[in-house]
Amino acid sequence: MIGPEIEALIKTLSRLPGIGPRSARRVALHLIQKRDQTLVPLTQALSRVLETVSVCDVCGNIDSRNPCGQCCDQKRDDHLLCVVETVADLWAMDRGGIFQGRFHVLGGTLSAIDGIGPENLTIPALLDRVHNGTVQEVIIATNATVDGQTTAHYVADQLRNTGVSITRLAHGVPVGGELDYLDDGTLGTALRARRPL
Amino acid sequence: MIGPEIEALIKTLSRLPGIGPRSARRVALHLIQKRDQTLVPLTQALSRVLETVSVCDVCGNIDSRNPCGQCCDQKRDDHLLCVVETVADLWAMDRGGIFQGRFHVLGGTLSAIDGIGPENLTIPALLDRVHNGTVQEVIIATNATVDGQTTAHYVADQLRNTGVSITRLAHGVPVGGELDYLDDGTLGTALRARRPL
Repeated sequence: MIGPEIEALIKTLSRLPGIGPRSARRVALHLIQKRDQTLVPLTQALSRVLETVSVCDVCGNIDSRNPCGQCCDQKRDDHLLCVVETVADLWAMDRGGIFQGRFHVLGGTLSAIDGIGPENLTIPALLDRVHNGTVQEVIIATNATVDGQTTAHYVADQLRNTGVSITRLAHGVPVGGELDYLDDGTLGTALRARRPL
Repeated sequence: MIGPEIEALIKTLSRLPGIGPRSARRVALHLIQKRDQTLVPLTQALSRVLETVSVCDVCGNIDSRNPCGQCCDQKRDDHLLCVVETVADLWAMDRGGIFQGRFHVLGGTLSAIDGIGPENLTIPALLDRVHNGTVQEVIIATNATVDGQTTAHYVADQLRNTGVSITRLAHGVPVGGELDYLDDGTLGTALRARRPL
């Protein structure tokens, strides 16, 4: 007979991704027993996020500023626009500072099965940005999945007559990857896209 | 460049048991993107726990009442006292209503290596409860580990002259267990403790 407050916490925790009923109990016990080191900071961190964080009106990123840090950053290149599926993908592209242009988060992929069409994604907003902005190159960085590639082709088609150049991430052997462990699709793509050494 | 509020949330989440930096990012994104279904309820559940839950002064359980639900429950048998290592063990014993007596949480096990002696556990409080209460049988339900068994023997020794009967959980083949997969220690214990059929 666990108290209702603790039961409610366990139930809420068990709905988070990657946390089942058992680890939810473990996390709840940890939180309660290390109150000052974990329960208090987590409650504060969540309240801060709840108060401050929202979705950026320009690019779809999440941040405590709106427009977000990436959109306000003066040092970034306005001519380059990287289109990604999700905020997690934006964070991945932004990690390590490999990309110094602007971002646009689609909010998912087109999917006939799930009934997700262009109007459910931020594709209209993307077209507006390209039409009214200073973008010269759109880099489509959707995932290399079927849905991701379908979405990439749809977006590219929509942008065809805007005069901007449209590129996508290279496909091939991952750095550090061993050929023996790669699937035939990746190997074939890498072979067709071979470059002079 | 993730905003400081989100970064703080990810850092706090990644300190929880079973959650690494990668799943912390995933959980944080999920929380922010499903704000009303997850972020708001979790913040509320944590705040409620923070306000109400404390350690029971009698048995060491955690609950929003003090003494806790188990200690206040009139239907439970005051003559039976089950001694467990942790609150998680108490919850396990209490699940399914298999045990209807009272509990006592030691708060861990004796450990020479970690410098944990009887005074670091709730053993003095346990002796007080047995001396001043109506307990007739103490069931020692520590884990079947070396530390758990050491602690069980120490507690049993301390209770030797109090006149209460001292028992421990049976060791043997787990229900549903296959002999072929059991370790020799468990099989030997099960053989020595064989019972008439």
